[in-house]
Amino acid sequence: MSSTEASNNSGVNGTEAASSRSLLRRIVDFLDEADWSFKKDKDRPIVKFISPDSLMSEYAEMLGLPDKPVPEDVLLDNLKTVYDLSVTSNHPRFYNQLFGRVHEESVVGSLLTDAINASIYTYEVAPVFTVMERLAMQQFLELFGFKNGEGVCTPGGSIGNMYAISLAKSAVFPDARRLGLAAMPPAKIYVSMESHYSMVKGASFMGFGENAVVKVATDEHGRMKVDALREHIKSDTENVANVCQEFNVWLHVDGCLGGSAILSESRRHLLDGCQRADSLTWNPHKMLGVNLQCSLLLTRHSGALQRAHGTQAAYLFQQDKFYPPQFDIGDKVIQCGRKVDVLKLWAVWRGLGKSGLGDLVDRKFTLAKQLANLIAQRQKTDGSFELIAEPESTNVLFWYIPPALRGQPADWSKRDDSWWRQMDAVAPLLKKRMTLDGSMLIGYQKCAASKNINCWRMVCSQDTNSEQDMERIVGEFCRFGEDISV
Amino acid sequence: MSSTEASNNSGVNGTEAASSRSLLRRIVDFLDEADWSFKKDKDRPIVKFISPDSLMSEYAEMLGLPDKPVPEDVLLDNLKTVYDLSVTSNHPRFYNQLFGRVHEESVVGSLLTDAINASIYTYEVAPVFTVMERLAMQQFLELFGFKNGEGVCTPGGSIGNMYAISLAKSAVFPDARRLGLAAMPPAKIYVSMESHYSMVKGASFMGFGENAVVKVATDEHGRMKVDALREHIKSDTENVANVCQEFNVWLHVDGCLGGSAILSESRRHLLDGCQRADSLTWNPHKMLGVNLQCSLLLTRHSGALQRAHGTQAAYLFQQDKFYPPQFDIGDKVIQCGRKVDVLKLWAVWRGLGKSGLGDLVDRKFTLAKQLANLIAQRQKTDGSFELIAEPESTNVLFWYIPPALRGQPADWSKRDDSWWRQMDAVAPLLKKRMTLDGSMLIGYQKCAASKNINCWRMVCSQDTNSEQDMERIVGEFCRFGEDISV
Repeated sequence: MSSTEASNNSGVNGTEAASSRSLLRRIVDFLDEADWSFKKDKDRPIVKFISPDSLMSEYAEMLGLPDKPVPEDVLLDNLKTVYDLSVTSNHPRFYNQLFGRVHEESVVGSLLTDAINASIYTYEVAPVFTVMERLAMQQFLELFGFKNGEGVCTPGGSIGNMYAISLAKSAVFPDARRLGLAAMPPAKIYVSMESHYSMVKGASFMGFGENAVVKVATDEHGRMKVDALREHIKSDTENVANVCQEFNVWLHVDGCLGGSAILSESRRHLLDGCQRADSLTWNPHKMLGVNLQCSLLLTRHSGALQRAHGTQAAYLFQQDKFYPPQFDIGDKVIQCGRKVDVLKLWAVWRGLGKSGLGDLVDRKFTLAKQLANLIAQRQKTDGSFELIAEPESTNVLFWYIPPALRGQPADWSKRDDSWWRQMDAVAPLLKKRMTLDGSMLIGYQKCAASKNINCWRMVCSQDTNSEQDMERIVGEFCRFGEDISV
Repeated sequence: MSSTEASNNSGVNGTEAASSRSLLRRIVDFLDEADWSFKKDKDRPIVKFISPDSLMSEYAEMLGLPDKPVPEDVLLDNLKTVYDLSVTSNHPRFYNQLFGRVHEESVVGSLLTDAINASIYTYEVAPVFTVMERLAMQQFLELFGFKNGEGVCTPGGSIGNMYAISLAKSAVFPDARRLGLAAMPPAKIYVSMESHYSMVKGASFMGFGENAVVKVATDEHGRMKVDALREHIKSDTENVANVCQEFNVWLHVDGCLGGSAILSESRRHLLDGCQRADSLTWNPHKMLGVNLQCSLLLTRHSGALQRAHGTQAAYLFQQDKFYPPQFDIGDKVIQCGRKVDVLKLWAVWRGLGKSGLGDLVDRKFTLAKQLANLIAQRQKTDGSFELIAEPESTNVLFWYIPPALRGQPADWSKRDDSWWRQMDAVAPLLKKRMTLDGSMLIGYQKCAASKNINCWRMVCSQDTNSEQDMERIVGEFCRFGEDISV
């Protein structure tokens, strides 16, 4: 194609016609060509791993922030390189975290959010978004069974969990806002042994101290033992006076991952009782294919957010405005400027409907069950895998056992220390192999349920997957692990 | 154009050819048509104001989250309506907040970030981004004159300021992480009377209590009076034992707005001395035309972030990884999942260069000076305006004085109470008029420098503006205010 033809045909996807097109159009062309949402090629590698040192030396110029601008063509090439070197959660074998493929509706919602570039604090600068967040929260409160209350989007689930601590503090110790924690009776934060680390971070960041967090034992499914909780609170309250005044204990549900089950008719019962919680966090960016970050906190106590966080900044929340000041929602949060996270959720919800989102959730739960079944089957037939627990959600905990380590007794207490030590070394080695191969990414960790031995925690977040994909995963483990000796 | 022609020419910008195009391309087409970056029409209204109640009733269906999906064409129409009803910071007369027009490079960086959808905690899932943030922070530390240290992007400047409080706590009271604030000697947080409200929010959220914040008096330019600070600390330390151990006082600089002056050769001297601070917050999303949110915190104390916030979550920060674990930067922050905010900054920086960004900063400072001059001129000639202080930065504080209230003595103490009361009512009324007219948006507020009387705080964030635009603004005030009687 000659350059004359190209310029006469500025809408064509080719790069030759690129010079007359905006950078935005050119990056969209590139994303299309690169098949960013894996519509065509599901078999390409998930990562072309290079070490941090190599990355920094091989791409030093590109990674730098120069004094003089680079030409647009160079910038575009740079952006393409960033894409090529990156790991995307859209890859059908990305199981490394709690999230997976994002919907095009979400990316579109994000793009519009960024082109508008509004901060969601006052109605005057974010009329649609403040109202949209407010209405969405009302709908979510209803969904989770809170009769009253309010909610806000938070920058991630960890900070959402900290909000819950903040609301509890404000409810139990209203004077703490002014006087600080030192003037209050000591407080305790009871969490499950398997709870997210944000509770410990929050306790520390917010001045309670990590020692204020009581980790309550869990059963073999990872669920908090209610008797143990009762014992803890009983023995603590003998020492901790006046702690449980008005609210006794503030009950917070961390539904960051599991909260999405509320959208599934067949699985919403898993959340029965959450309507009795004082607050709840939920991350649509985890199970629903909404872009990072989309997290929200709900509380059934209307006005609690303002009581806990309001300062009525003079330059934003003027009370002499000509519209009702309660539409300025920005004083409820701990930020000032706040990125709009609700538009992409709204776009995904409208594009798929609650029914479509519920189907997605069901598919992910079903995939987890199918994976667990395949693993249990292997456990029975050739002992190459071991299922650590029946899945309660979309994550599956299991071991891959290399040939040399198979054939142990079913009773864990009858396996010797050296075997556990060897098993502990399997996952890091296998992770290295899968990463360098680039075929898939799956997370591993030590946890109480795995006797603090490294095990695989595979989160079935990829809604385009089928049972065949789960079989493929199982096969990949065997391919990478067959000759492992540790 | 017939529909056959249209479908044969799928790259064309028209909506007729839309059905075969992806939603992403269709929204880009729309943004182009809508002239989202104001390349063509600078005269259209900034807002078509409707009241919250009308918005909610007129657009109830659109704002809702339905059970069944809506067709893609409906969703696209909805997105267009959202755009039409929204206020965008790209409008050349948006002066309502500290930020203005965003660069196309930034929107492109955001789009790529969202298409990739990586969480920036570990190298394995965000190799380019973890390294890019790390290198950018090293460069920024150098820029601000910190010889060592580290930095991270934070979700907004308020949370960045809270990080500074957290680092100070960790440095002065290393045991507070474990034991909580109640076990520590009482602490004080000294801020300027005019400091951002996030310091008070942070003190409350983080358990110190609002009473721990000491607001130090400011001079007529809004700068903290150093003598007053010395007096405060002296009298407090008589009562507050052991507070100032290792670090004496942790010095934090809130450079969220003003930090960008570091990029201007002629104005970087305004930040002389900041290299002696322990920590500094800076929001490139304010003066540099980067999308919300792009905020960062720098500290000259290497390892301070990990000491303050690290918990080494087992499922993310495994120490037995096959690459150096220090490249997993996620344990330094209080979030877990964290949106990538660095790519858009990197794209803007490469696209404009440090020199181009410095020019932008200069232009904004110059605009503020030009506006102040115009106002001072009016003050002298017809008394229609009054400049409250010579601008120290890009924001200008002034009053518009309606004809009925002009001709007061220069000495503020000689103006009577009823005059001040009337002046206080002018800004809200004028703001209503400008909003309903849709020609511009400018913030007003009460502050110490304005005797707690509502005044205009216009932030010259629009880099496409010229002195003529400032003249136009002044003219608009007169147009809206000529017949005001309060």
